[in-house]
Amino acid sequence: MPQTTALIDCLNWRYATKKMNPGKRVSQEKVERILEAARLAPTSSGLQPFEIVVVTSAEVRTRIKPIAWNQSQITDCSHLLVFAAWDNYTPERINHMFDLTNEVRGVKNEGWENYRNMLLDSYPQRSAEVNFQHTARQAYIGLSAALIAAAFEEVDGTPMEGFDPKALDEILSLPARGLRSVAILPLGYRQEEGDWLVKLKKVRRPREQFVTEV
Amino acid sequence: MPQTTALIDCLNWRYATKKMNPGKRVSQEKVERILEAARLAPTSSGLQPFEIVVVTSAEVRTRIKPIAWNQSQITDCSHLLVFAAWDNYTPERINHMFDLTNEVRGVKNEGWENYRNMLLDSYPQRSAEVNFQHTARQAYIGLSAALIAAAFEEVDGTPMEGFDPKALDEILSLPARGLRSVAILPLGYRQEEGDWLVKLKKVRRPREQFVTEV
Repeated sequence: MPQTTALIDCLNWRYATKKMNPGKRVSQEKVERILEAARLAPTSSGLQPFEIVVVTSAEVRTRIKPIAWNQSQITDCSHLLVFAAWDNYTPERINHMFDLTNEVRGVKNEGWENYRNMLLDSYPQRSAEVNFQHTARQAYIGLSAALIAAAFEEVDGTPMEGFDPKALDEILSLPARGLRSVAILPLGYRQEEGDWLVKLKKVRRPREQFVTEV
Repeated sequence: MPQTTALIDCLNWRYATKKMNPGKRVSQEKVERILEAARLAPTSSGLQPFEIVVVTSAEVRTRIKPIAWNQSQITDCSHLLVFAAWDNYTPERINHMFDLTNEVRGVKNEGWENYRNMLLDSYPQRSAEVNFQHTARQAYIGLSAALIAAAFEEVDGTPMEGFDPKALDEILSLPARGLRSVAILPLGYRQEEGDWLVKLKKVRRPREQFVTEV
């Protein structure tokens, strides 16, 4: 199984890069494949309740850095991916995905329409906070797909939650778009000199502390 | 880039299988590689705040099915993965991972110890609910890695949130272990006859509705 071995190898190869080389840029082709992996990631009911903002502007990244614990990767990376989850489920958003599905598939199906109505009758009635916790989880499925894709591209990335989400939302004008930042992923290339983590072993709980069987 | 193409191909190949062949069993080798991908997935501060319960017992799956909308995959799959997130962050759980890290790496580092103390001074003081929302997101990173790994193995899977988590927690005695179920992933093989989704196109919002650039 060469392919699966490749996936496990990629997961072992990647690490949360602490120091990136500011002079090395990730090619647009690679960035596109990483974004495509996130776009193809599955989400609950296929609603894809998140978007990705790709920040390359040096000026904007300089403004983000101080609200992200001054982590150097923010400005040393070449592309900063911001995973922004929907702040709520609305009938418009739900209908958009169901209409798109009907359009792409060229069929209208009664079971599918019943499912649409079930979501319309439940999601928008829940609190925005409950819905946001749900959309945020879906964004993490995309985050995981993106960081795996980056490893396949031999691109380094550092998934981060260490930032002030409200401040980042303001910098990127996300509230006006009904979005809230949940995680960021700088993409770039490691600079081994100055990266305290690069030579250290990856640590995970052993299988027996992670898996149980019933 | 054959490897990345493979990842994109896998994401395009997989779909939320609606009907599984109850006579076809996933080999233990494949299940192990899928679990290994989830185990290697990154999590916030490396805490890995979730576990996976692999349910193969037919009796237990028969009890789970009615609390999961009677979805047939629950009993037709060969392995039901239950992603169970920590119900809270405790000093014991945090210390366990930091101690394990020191043990595996064979070094004790001042910066790392300061980071441990920073987490000890903040996470356990937050409400269990805030912490659980955080651990659940990390579990979704593992879920995504597992479903990508399944696709690499040409194993079908159906990520599901459509179940009563409290009832599932009781069936699996998760509360006593400080765990709460957040998602389940039946693994098996599609039975095309009877699967309404298998021939339909995958639908995702186009890139221009998913990605913006700054």
